[in-house]
Amino acid sequence: MILEIADFRINPGQQAGFEAALTQGLAQVISRAQGFKGAKVNHGIENPERYVLQIFWETLEDHTVGFRQGPLFPEWRALIGPFFAAPPQVEHFTLVIGP
Amino acid sequence: MILEIADFRINPGQQAGFEAALTQGLAQVISRAQGFKGAKVNHGIENPERYVLQIFWETLEDHTVGFRQGPLFPEWRALIGPFFAAPPQVEHFTLVIGP
Repeated sequence: MILEIADFRINPGQQAGFEAALTQGLAQVISRAQGFKGAKVNHGIENPERYVLQIFWETLEDHTVGFRQGPLFPEWRALIGPFFAAPPQVEHFTLVIGP
Repeated sequence: MILEIADFRINPGQQAGFEAALTQGLAQVISRAQGFKGAKVNHGIENPERYVLQIFWETLEDHTVGFRQGPLFPEWRALIGPFFAAPPQVEHFTLVIGP
């Protein structure tokens, strides 16, 4: 299992719309992806325009190839892309300490 | 409950030492802090010098006041600080979507 961490900066004042889009995108798009194992979204206290999305994938390629190069990615981006104030920063991680 | 996300960039080739320091620091220092509710550490796949530490705290002030201004913080920094290639980036978050 690997972890995708996506760091989003959205336009000011659009939190409610962005959270609704994320909720819809996770439930209706991401959840249909091969290898999807779960997700959570955290919202910044110091920076209210910052959101951190964490998605667990069975393998790295489930995200980078299966999802990013497949038909679901444009659906997902169409939902959340309009809120971005900057390009998302996305990297992948392994768990080294913790549950 | 709030989430602290700390983003670390360490010096190349020091992964084993840094992971040992983190393990020791979490077990012997952070775990003694008031309001500490759990932690995990993820290691970058694209950037092997990047680590993301997530710590759950009962309240924001348990971290920013109780821990950061108390006697445990210098102990923690003495363990992990020598590995830093850049100042850590630390912010706090609430959970908006997820388990």
